[in-house]
Amino acid sequence: MDLLIIAPISGLVALGVAGYLYWHVRRQDPGSGRMIEISDAIREGAMAYLKREYLTLAVFVLVVAVVLAAFLGVDRALAYAFGSACSALAGFFGMDMAVRANVRVAQAARKGMTKAFSIGFYSGCVMGMSVVGMALLGISALYYVSGDLDVILAFSFGASSLALFAKAGGGIFTKTADISADLVGKVEKGIPEDDPRNPAVIADNVGDNVGDVAGMGADLIDSYIAAIIASMIIGLGKHGLAGATLPVMLAAVGIFASVLGIPFVRVGEGADPGTALNRGTFLTMFIFAALVLVLVRFLKFDMGIFYATVAGLGAGIMIGLTSDYFTSIERGPVKRIAQESLMGASTNILTGFSYGLVSAAPPIIGICAATILSYHFAGMYGVAISAVGMLAIVGMIVSNDAFGPITDNAKGISEQAGLGEEVIAVGDRLDAAGNTVKAITKGFAIGGAALTVLALFGSYAEIVGIEALDLMHPNVVSGVFIGAMMPPFLSALLILAVGKNAYKMIDEVRRQFREIPGIMEGKTRPDYTRVVDMGTKDALRGLVAPSVLSMVVPPVVGLVLGKEALGGFLGGSIFTGMIFAIFMANSGGAWDNAKKYIEAGAFGGKGSEPHKAAVIGDTVGDPFKDTAGPSLNTLICVMGLSASVFAPLIAAYALFG
Amino acid sequence: MDLLIIAPISGLVALGVAGYLYWHVRRQDPGSGRMIEISDAIREGAMAYLKREYLTLAVFVLVVAVVLAAFLGVDRALAYAFGSACSALAGFFGMDMAVRANVRVAQAARKGMTKAFSIGFYSGCVMGMSVVGMALLGISALYYVSGDLDVILAFSFGASSLALFAKAGGGIFTKTADISADLVGKVEKGIPEDDPRNPAVIADNVGDNVGDVAGMGADLIDSYIAAIIASMIIGLGKHGLAGATLPVMLAAVGIFASVLGIPFVRVGEGADPGTALNRGTFLTMFIFAALVLVLVRFLKFDMGIFYATVAGLGAGIMIGLTSDYFTSIERGPVKRIAQESLMGASTNILTGFSYGLVSAAPPIIGICAATILSYHFAGMYGVAISAVGMLAIVGMIVSNDAFGPITDNAKGISEQAGLGEEVIAVGDRLDAAGNTVKAITKGFAIGGAALTVLALFGSYAEIVGIEALDLMHPNVVSGVFIGAMMPPFLSALLILAVGKNAYKMIDEVRRQFREIPGIMEGKTRPDYTRVVDMGTKDALRGLVAPSVLSMVVPPVVGLVLGKEALGGFLGGSIFTGMIFAIFMANSGGAWDNAKKYIEAGAFGGKGSEPHKAAVIGDTVGDPFKDTAGPSLNTLICVMGLSASVFAPLIAAYALFG
Repeated sequence: MDLLIIAPISGLVALGVAGYLYWHVRRQDPGSGRMIEISDAIREGAMAYLKREYLTLAVFVLVVAVVLAAFLGVDRALAYAFGSACSALAGFFGMDMAVRANVRVAQAARKGMTKAFSIGFYSGCVMGMSVVGMALLGISALYYVSGDLDVILAFSFGASSLALFAKAGGGIFTKTADISADLVGKVEKGIPEDDPRNPAVIADNVGDNVGDVAGMGADLIDSYIAAIIASMIIGLGKHGLAGATLPVMLAAVGIFASVLGIPFVRVGEGADPGTALNRGTFLTMFIFAALVLVLVRFLKFDMGIFYATVAGLGAGIMIGLTSDYFTSIERGPVKRIAQESLMGASTNILTGFSYGLVSAAPPIIGICAATILSYHFAGMYGVAISAVGMLAIVGMIVSNDAFGPITDNAKGISEQAGLGEEVIAVGDRLDAAGNTVKAITKGFAIGGAALTVLALFGSYAEIVGIEALDLMHPNVVSGVFIGAMMPPFLSALLILAVGKNAYKMIDEVRRQFREIPGIMEGKTRPDYTRVVDMGTKDALRGLVAPSVLSMVVPPVVGLVLGKEALGGFLGGSIFTGMIFAIFMANSGGAWDNAKKYIEAGAFGGKGSEPHKAAVIGDTVGDPFKDTAGPSLNTLICVMGLSASVFAPLIAAYALFG
Repeated sequence: MDLLIIAPISGLVALGVAGYLYWHVRRQDPGSGRMIEISDAIREGAMAYLKREYLTLAVFVLVVAVVLAAFLGVDRALAYAFGSACSALAGFFGMDMAVRANVRVAQAARKGMTKAFSIGFYSGCVMGMSVVGMALLGISALYYVSGDLDVILAFSFGASSLALFAKAGGGIFTKTADISADLVGKVEKGIPEDDPRNPAVIADNVGDNVGDVAGMGADLIDSYIAAIIASMIIGLGKHGLAGATLPVMLAAVGIFASVLGIPFVRVGEGADPGTALNRGTFLTMFIFAALVLVLVRFLKFDMGIFYATVAGLGAGIMIGLTSDYFTSIERGPVKRIAQESLMGASTNILTGFSYGLVSAAPPIIGICAATILSYHFAGMYGVAISAVGMLAIVGMIVSNDAFGPITDNAKGISEQAGLGEEVIAVGDRLDAAGNTVKAITKGFAIGGAALTVLALFGSYAEIVGIEALDLMHPNVVSGVFIGAMMPPFLSALLILAVGKNAYKMIDEVRRQFREIPGIMEGKTRPDYTRVVDMGTKDALRGLVAPSVLSMVVPPVVGLVLGKEALGGFLGGSIFTGMIFAIFMANSGGAWDNAKKYIEAGAFGGKGSEPHKAAVIGDTVGDPFKDTAGPSLNTLICVMGLSASVFAPLIAAYALFG
């Protein structure tokens, strides 16, 4: 038990590193004049968004906490609130860094890439390290105070609620703003992207931060905490106390590996920043695997644990490589999609849609292989451990992931402030690197969520005492059917919310152009705040149905059709959840790059008919890859946690069985 | 046993009715001059397509038969070939009628609707009655000759192979021709739809027949036979001989009910033909339910059998009503999709996509309810019986379904031959009626396939002796995962084939316009045959991968991961198969009607920007609703049959378990 002290220590180390890097980045030169002005507008918008989101979340958390207190006890209600607060705090810290770092990256880019790259990466690390630090500190604190895994489960449920708001809400916001800014600005008014005359331009930049930085961080951390607690529960049942504490120690080791990896992520003036980022990830994996081997040997655990961890890492890499193949601008699928644009938007869309579906096959085989192998090595506990193994290096993954939107924003600021061709070229290279690493980070996010929900499925079975789950029983089949329906259904609700909100925001942007004199001449500032505010309110409104459904449907299925049916439900949600998450992410990525391929000169280049077709495809893909797809990880995780949290009630009061 | 004689009798009655109606329709006036010319070209094209398809199929069947003979015995190989031959013959007969009836409907429409309607409906009945007649005669013959259910299973597998070719091949062909005709004709050359100067116009008309008439008939009949044999197998295991013969008798009763329903389908000059068709379906259901009640009472079966039958019918109606709601031009979803076209093609597509996903939820709840209820009344046998109950009236369903493309073709001939506004108006009303009934018939096709594959899942378990299928075992989970991946993966292959083939066909159409002098002036006939021939070859080539995969993957999963994993695989294929089948059918239907809604004057009407956006949505939807969506029923059925047919090998040689 004493060894468990490394968990809070690693949490403190992560927070210490985050604090140091925060201080380091803030010391950098933020540039001057117009740059600061733009950056301030983005920061104010992002903070306004965050403030409203957190207020709404507070009400939501309060309601859920009251329900938990009434049915399951005050301790779980408090842990739930604590979980959402910890995640919210980490999200706030990371966002605050991101919206301060963008302008500093832009300023540093005036002197070359090396410096700009490291500011971008270090500010990403602030997000990465804050979230893992808060998560592990929170888990350790609750474990020391209560010693009750059900309480930690409630903590995880709280973190998931925050993730739902951050990811799905941010996803709705960012695409609403994106579509509205493009449609009125580029299409109707003919002004360039990121033009300050566009009333939706700040909302668009804010969206990148709230959707990608805060959202992605929250998504990964949600799976991270859930994987840890699920394997603690299974471990306690199958291997006693040692089984319960091992996952926490693996997570701690993962933090050390990530911290050790950070200094190696650097790049010379001529080198490729994407390679540098991926090198950091692979190095971290390697260090992590070595440390796990030492830990397993030292604690005299079965070597199966080590193999299960490696199986998880392998699945993550495999999913990443598949994403890379199907979305890379240099490979067959993207080129074929671009070519189909010659026949029009429909064939572009049909081809991108199809390749997205095809791209789900290899990752599924990867996840199946990881599941079978890790089960073979260490039973259901092994499956849970492989999820922890995949997610233990999440500090590094989030750091890489946040790098993308931060440098993207930096590029936007360079353009708006007119810093010149050379600076924008550096921004372009950094932005491209961000897109390169996205394949790997998305692989970890999707694979991690799938294995985590499999682990939650196991922990749920452990809690309600299901030994076998018979797929021949009609209630279980129905459970799987309904569970399988949820991910596509919830995706649809999120996409419909984007369409509906964009319709309103476009009206507002047009109104400003029409009613505020002098906008087009650049004499008057448009009312950015109003647009941001509107998008925020509408995004949170669009969140209500998916959030409530993902929390309420699992216990309802359990209470009406029985605990076995709910087990089936969780299984069903993983199957389609993973297919849709991969399909949407990769279709979206491929459409985006097909457009870029044409813009680079193929099939008529920019402004040609094929280009217009590819733009339509790209716009279809936007909510796929940035709203619905990534939200699915969080949604299936919330459903798994909801089932586990309410398991005692279901076991006691189910109508069936 | 003597009572079983009603099965071949009902088969002969069905064929007799088909023969009589064939004779009756052929006696009608085929018009003259230009009409006959066009109709001949369509008939020749369709027959050329069919000839090549059947030749390819013969090779395919031969290969599979040799494999079956080598591993499972010559009797099954012969039954397999017999099954595909019976279905091919029925398909040929129905197609021959359809391509002769279209011109007669057009001619009759010159004198009003009543006569045109009944020719259209009766020619649809020729298809409907031929397929059920051949199916039930074939099953009875094999049962009398061999008495071995495994042999009938091979017969069903043969019918499924034909269905795969007819439905998926026809689906690829029809959309390839449709896209090519539209793109070069309407978009590039600016000539109207169905203009005889377009080299792809005959291919387009041929496509309606081979895709919709022959394809849909084969699809339904495939589920029909599979549901009967699956419930025979489960029935024999659970209830002995009586359990095995009951499904055949239910099917016989269904034929009588359909025949009794036919005379009631008629319409006065002013009445609504869609209502008349649906009235016939509902009346047939009612007669069928009453006859089943009598049969169950008379044979002293448990009343649960009756309830299970009714549960199946209820699920079919529920799916139909949902499709109607989500695709009707008068309801919210279609109007909202039309409205989103104001923002462009992307939002039109995103909204249609989302509503399609949402529309899968109610049918899934319907199928779950039918499954739970029928299981409650009569165990796994009840589930199989509910599938038979839903599909027993398939003679009537196929009749209604074939009505649509036949009248659509008739309208096309009226336009090409210039029969005048009034005749075209009659054609429009008949065509609209065809679309109205499609909601119900598609509901039966999708629901029937889902319940059939559930029944096949049960019969597979019966054959390999699985008592329970533990979803907690990693191999079963992996089986479900891989099975769930198949429907989207195969859909993607079919859609990619359409894109690829259209790319080639467009080249050929452009070449003809360029190289054959006098086409645009209407002086020279384009080379229709070459386009039809090209489309046929390419469609058959596009079929290879999906056909082989759907037959080979199930036994491979069984042999590598074990018989339980294959059980999970079948379950997985139903879950996503049903979701994708409904989503694709309804998204496609909704986009189509959103375009029509705009064409009727909303949001700027024909030629406006929103209209252009809606046309793009409609084109995306075409392969969804006419290629991939409907092929899924057949594909999951083939996978279920392949698992059952190869079950003895899997039980003997599987690596796992």
